[in-house]
Amino acid sequence: MGITIQSIIEGLIAPVGKLEQTCDTLKCGNPDTEVTGIVVAFMPTQYVIEQAIARGANFIISHEGPFFSNHDDCSTLVDDPVYQKKRNTIDESGIALFRFHDYWHRYKPDGIMAGLLQELNWTSFVQEHYAASTVLQFPKETVRGIAEQIKNRLGIQYVRVQGDPDTVCSKIGLLAGYRGLGQRAIPFFEQDQLDLIIYGEGPEWETPEYVRDAIYQGKHKALIVLGHAESEEPGMKHLANLLSNKYSEIPVFYVKERSIFQII
Amino acid sequence: MGITIQSIIEGLIAPVGKLEQTCDTLKCGNPDTEVTGIVVAFMPTQYVIEQAIARGANFIISHEGPFFSNHDDCSTLVDDPVYQKKRNTIDESGIALFRFHDYWHRYKPDGIMAGLLQELNWTSFVQEHYAASTVLQFPKETVRGIAEQIKNRLGIQYVRVQGDPDTVCSKIGLLAGYRGLGQRAIPFFEQDQLDLIIYGEGPEWETPEYVRDAIYQGKHKALIVLGHAESEEPGMKHLANLLSNKYSEIPVFYVKERSIFQII
Repeated sequence: MGITIQSIIEGLIAPVGKLEQTCDTLKCGNPDTEVTGIVVAFMPTQYVIEQAIARGANFIISHEGPFFSNHDDCSTLVDDPVYQKKRNTIDESGIALFRFHDYWHRYKPDGIMAGLLQELNWTSFVQEHYAASTVLQFPKETVRGIAEQIKNRLGIQYVRVQGDPDTVCSKIGLLAGYRGLGQRAIPFFEQDQLDLIIYGEGPEWETPEYVRDAIYQGKHKALIVLGHAESEEPGMKHLANLLSNKYSEIPVFYVKERSIFQII
Repeated sequence: MGITIQSIIEGLIAPVGKLEQTCDTLKCGNPDTEVTGIVVAFMPTQYVIEQAIARGANFIISHEGPFFSNHDDCSTLVDDPVYQKKRNTIDESGIALFRFHDYWHRYKPDGIMAGLLQELNWTSFVQEHYAASTVLQFPKETVRGIAEQIKNRLGIQYVRVQGDPDTVCSKIGLLAGYRGLGQRAIPFFEQDQLDLIIYGEGPEWETPEYVRDAIYQGKHKALIVLGHAESEEPGMKHLANLLSNKYSEIPVFYVKERSIFQII
């Protein structure tokens, strides 16, 4: 018998220890099945699932859940044809899907952050890792210059920027995923004397409005918004590399989606 | 004695009736003060407050609150210099600030929606007003064409689009503000057989991922994201016009902010 889904899950959660409350569960599939291949993705989209099937991989590890929500309750979707087709694709394939979100964020450092820093080639600038954010001491660079580095290194078409693109920054706070909430990001500016925060996603009426007022008051602050997926995909690519090294006998594929939005 | 702040507030809430639970309260100022002028804005930014002072207006009516949150609790901000300066500006001016959010959304039709439709010149396409959304029967038009109309008429630089810009749409769902949540927007597609949803803001991992899967499955769906402020500002401009007509003896100013993000 080869390696089972259950044993891979146990390996993934071991560095953290079992969490009492978590969205990281096996959403479908039999944990005792032998793994034929692993697809790692940020989001288990219809495309990602079909890619797994086409590549003969019977195990998907994704950061987000399959049904457009943080919750597993699909009761409002039962009559929806998009949901039904996706559900059927999963059920007929017998594929297993494990959500790896909370555990990966609790690695030290956060696995999503580690992957993002690696992809940005900024690991050497890290001054401090907090549980949900990282402070970088950066060579002096303008907001525009930093935005261009991000676009080039993450392969994304645009970022959204609040503040003067010519503002020179050296102390930068980085928050991956949906961590742009005012409660988290606003005190971060002051506590770590940041010039710039870069986050994945957050409510538009919170942190961006704080930065708007700060700038109007004459303070040198700026904000770059990457996009939720854009900020977390590199962390899943990083996971795929780790799994590939650990399980050399199992094919591991990282499947990347296109950016969710285009600008018109 | 002229018109008091309290009497204007009473006029604003009268069409809805007093709500038991609401964020629409007088955040500062004395309700018995005689109104010298009204500034209406989406967000009471530092700039908006200073504009009110400069124009001799002692009453601000805004859709959102002044301190970067839906909640009035500022305990985490007390030591923050941006908060302190804004707080001082408000306190020293003696200006009154009323948040007009829940009531305005409960007008029939929703005052924010009415203003947005008017600004877009789409009022004649309305097929049905629901409490929190509106269905439009649109002359056949591509997603790109609709995006260009929105940009021109709202005076915004960009919109974010999910889906093929050449998709032809005729049945459109419109949601202003933070109403792009999957719970609300996903069933809306199916229930009203929509080709396109246009919303202000919503979580990126919910509705946009549903649309991504729908498109990959071959369904003709699309999504346009306006931005939160961009979708609600016209509703506050509309309010300013109504107040200006109602209180011809009081100067009423609509103060518009610049878009919160630029694209790089």
